[in-house]
Amino acid sequence: MVVLKGKPVADSICDKIRDNIEELTNKGIEPGLAIVRVGKKPDDIYYESSAIKRMESVGIRVASVVLNENISESALITKIQELNYDDGIHGILLLMPLPKHINSENVKHAIAPEKDIDGLTDENMCRLYAGDKDGFAPCTPSAVMELLEYYNIDVTGKNVVIVGRSLVVGKPLLMLMLAKNATVTVCHSKTEDLKKVCRQADILVAAAGRAKMINAEYISENALVIDVGINQDENGNMCGDADYESVCTKASAVTPVPGGIGSITTSVLAKHTVEAALKLID
Amino acid sequence: MVVLKGKPVADSICDKIRDNIEELTNKGIEPGLAIVRVGKKPDDIYYESSAIKRMESVGIRVASVVLNENISESALITKIQELNYDDGIHGILLLMPLPKHINSENVKHAIAPEKDIDGLTDENMCRLYAGDKDGFAPCTPSAVMELLEYYNIDVTGKNVVIVGRSLVVGKPLLMLMLAKNATVTVCHSKTEDLKKVCRQADILVAAAGRAKMINAEYISENALVIDVGINQDENGNMCGDADYESVCTKASAVTPVPGGIGSITTSVLAKHTVEAALKLID
Repeated sequence: MVVLKGKPVADSICDKIRDNIEELTNKGIEPGLAIVRVGKKPDDIYYESSAIKRMESVGIRVASVVLNENISESALITKIQELNYDDGIHGILLLMPLPKHINSENVKHAIAPEKDIDGLTDENMCRLYAGDKDGFAPCTPSAVMELLEYYNIDVTGKNVVIVGRSLVVGKPLLMLMLAKNATVTVCHSKTEDLKKVCRQADILVAAAGRAKMINAEYISENALVIDVGINQDENGNMCGDADYESVCTKASAVTPVPGGIGSITTSVLAKHTVEAALKLID
Repeated sequence: MVVLKGKPVADSICDKIRDNIEELTNKGIEPGLAIVRVGKKPDDIYYESSAIKRMESVGIRVASVVLNENISESALITKIQELNYDDGIHGILLLMPLPKHINSENVKHAIAPEKDIDGLTDENMCRLYAGDKDGFAPCTPSAVMELLEYYNIDVTGKNVVIVGRSLVVGKPLLMLMLAKNATVTVCHSKTEDLKKVCRQADILVAAAGRAKMINAEYISENALVIDVGINQDENGNMCGDADYESVCTKASAVTPVPGGIGSITTSVLAKHTVEAALKLID
């Protein structure tokens, strides 16, 4: 059983980025990422600080835009539009979910598609759906694809089963896997006999958002399990959507939580920001 | 073995439309569909004439816009923009594919989303992808959903396997099936052991565009087979993607070709046109 750790994947992405950043610097461009946070949710602050650390490590400038949780929708949109026009900002990361008094759809769509490095806008969703590789996919499903590429796992023709159909992970991953010629099955809460469907997977992706729901009964001998979940177990410890110990008795390979997919996402964020900046000198 | 014919489905859709048209007429609105044809391809002329017949039968006015096959891209786009501004036109059907000197993407996206009754624009693709039911899906996958609804076939939790991943049928059907809570698998030319994957289907949709490729070996006992293909066999006769006689030995139900899904699409076109007109009085 192989543990597919995220760190070497993240490091490898960052190594490539550093070359691109040198290229940009030589042309007078310093790549910049704006992180827009509304309020003080601990999850947001945690992700923001790990993103800042990652950006600093590769040489991407970060503008932290911290807004009061009572900000109006129109004021937030105005702030985003300012970032759209800011030549020093190449990527905009909007931390979600937003407070309930704000219509997230309106705010998401205010982001300029070319700076939408987390794939929230219609333009980027549409490109993903259409199989056009020029857009930005959301960072988490992109991190899954980066991990597979790093470990030389070819999905062509393979049975990939995705548990979860969210717009943030399940659906975009479905599109990325299809674009790589996998045979893709999407399961969800309404799926009949989920265990049976999951056992048909060569690669099983757990992205349902339920702690430890995928155990050995859901996988066939030698399957690869990719765990996208980030949950807390009954003791308050971080755990994935897969029951790690149980899954390890059967799988050929598995991504851990923590230390798996989640540890790659900030590198993807950095990569997308650099790609957005590179498009300016194309 | 039940043959799921398209005609009663089409008739049922048209009956409902007539009520809506009465409602519109009472408010002084006559629904109108523009059919834009570039050149004289026999397939286009055939589809156009059957669409016109259908629209006349329910009381939708048709504007046939026939353009020379040498028309420039910009002239075609101008024509479409005129239709966008024409208050008497509620739906625009652009017959595809366009001649090679024209970039279809540019032309598609010139259609106003609210008149894009065949779901070609980014706005409508994006709504479909996001699970927003307010947009228009392409007519052929919509016809599949209409057939299932008419025959009271609930797809919730069922294993639906779609062979084909085109933007016109496979992908939109995937999204429509997911929205109806089916467990969906998408197969294609790169799928390993296609027969095995197809045999896992409760409902198998053949949308690969290859004459008679799906035979009894691809289906399990009692599966339902939906044939979206329109091809010619070795004798020049119209046939589907399924080998009808072979499939009939095993399936519980099958849609014929001709007389199946293809005979429903013009009714969906009429339904979408009326829906587009109804939005004006909402």
